[in-house]
Amino acid sequence: MRILGIDPGSVATGFGVVDRTGGALVHVAHGTLRPPRGAALPARLHYLYRALAQVIEEHHPDAVAVEQVFVAVSPRAALVLGQARGAVLAAVAAGGLPVAEYTPAQIKQGVTGSGAAPKSQVQVMVRRILALERAPAADAADALAAAIRHAHEPRLALLGVTGRRRRSRPSARFAVAPRQAP
Amino acid sequence: MRILGIDPGSVATGFGVVDRTGGALVHVAHGTLRPPRGAALPARLHYLYRALAQVIEEHHPDAVAVEQVFVAVSPRAALVLGQARGAVLAAVAAGGLPVAEYTPAQIKQGVTGSGAAPKSQVQVMVRRILALERAPAADAADALAAAIRHAHEPRLALLGVTGRRRRSRPSARFAVAPRQAP
Repeated sequence: MRILGIDPGSVATGFGVVDRTGGALVHVAHGTLRPPRGAALPARLHYLYRALAQVIEEHHPDAVAVEQVFVAVSPRAALVLGQARGAVLAAVAAGGLPVAEYTPAQIKQGVTGSGAAPKSQVQVMVRRILALERAPAADAADALAAAIRHAHEPRLALLGVTGRRRRSRPSARFAVAPRQAP
Repeated sequence: MRILGIDPGSVATGFGVVDRTGGALVHVAHGTLRPPRGAALPARLHYLYRALAQVIEEHHPDAVAVEQVFVAVSPRAALVLGQARGAVLAAVAAGGLPVAEYTPAQIKQGVTGSGAAPKSQVQVMVRRILALERAPAADAADALAAAIRHAHEPRLALLGVTGRRRRSRPSARFAVAPRQAP
């Protein structure tokens, strides 16, 4: 089971690819997609679409986990973020992949045990869980954390394309109990 | 000069294609794209992406005019609209087309003479300007109005990919002065 985590943003979109092999989580790749700064909006959005399509083509994930948007921002910020998400999610759907959405709190709790953990703590824990040589940049760390959160989802085998999940897990788990791959 | 106007929306995205031939505006096509209601968000966004790509492939426009977003909405509404815009603009950029953005007030003024005209008045005037048998549905009428507004742009030949325009025109013009095509 290979999971692609994405943290969409208009300036920087983080991605991270993680394999769940039996009880282990194995890091495959991560990075940050940055549309050319000077380019017009449509070109920037198309850059995200193409770059995501390329990541999917290169790594062949089985599922995608995306950070849900924290909505208590200004309408302007929500519009800008929404445009980036629109291009990203259209590319994911073009690949025919099931998508799960998790709130930032669910993702943070999934790797740190606290839904209110600062970004730096997420970076530290993502590095530890995946045994990386150094901590990934913030956007890529958030994307890897989303993939890790999804890998821990006990009902993974049942998931098709899902909407948001209301309840966060009562506690974080850093180890995945051995089970049959779906 | 063929112009594709788009009025992006998550439930319905209007499009309209208009030719500027010398001093005349000629209606080519219009319609409304409706992503399947029950589908998941990524699939709905990819529907918009594909449908727009199909419109572009079918009609080969030279330029695109998009309604700019009225930002005084809630963050949630802005996010939803942003996602639709993201998929739409990524598809437009995939076609390599220059995009001009106009505010709703600029578009309304361009066809009715008033930036505060109600939607019904836009529909009436779009029908009149393009000599259509009946008024198009609201989303398609807004898209056609955006294309008409762009066709009236005096600096059209100079436009590449543009951002928003700050100043609205002092008065609406329903006829285009004869001039050389770029």
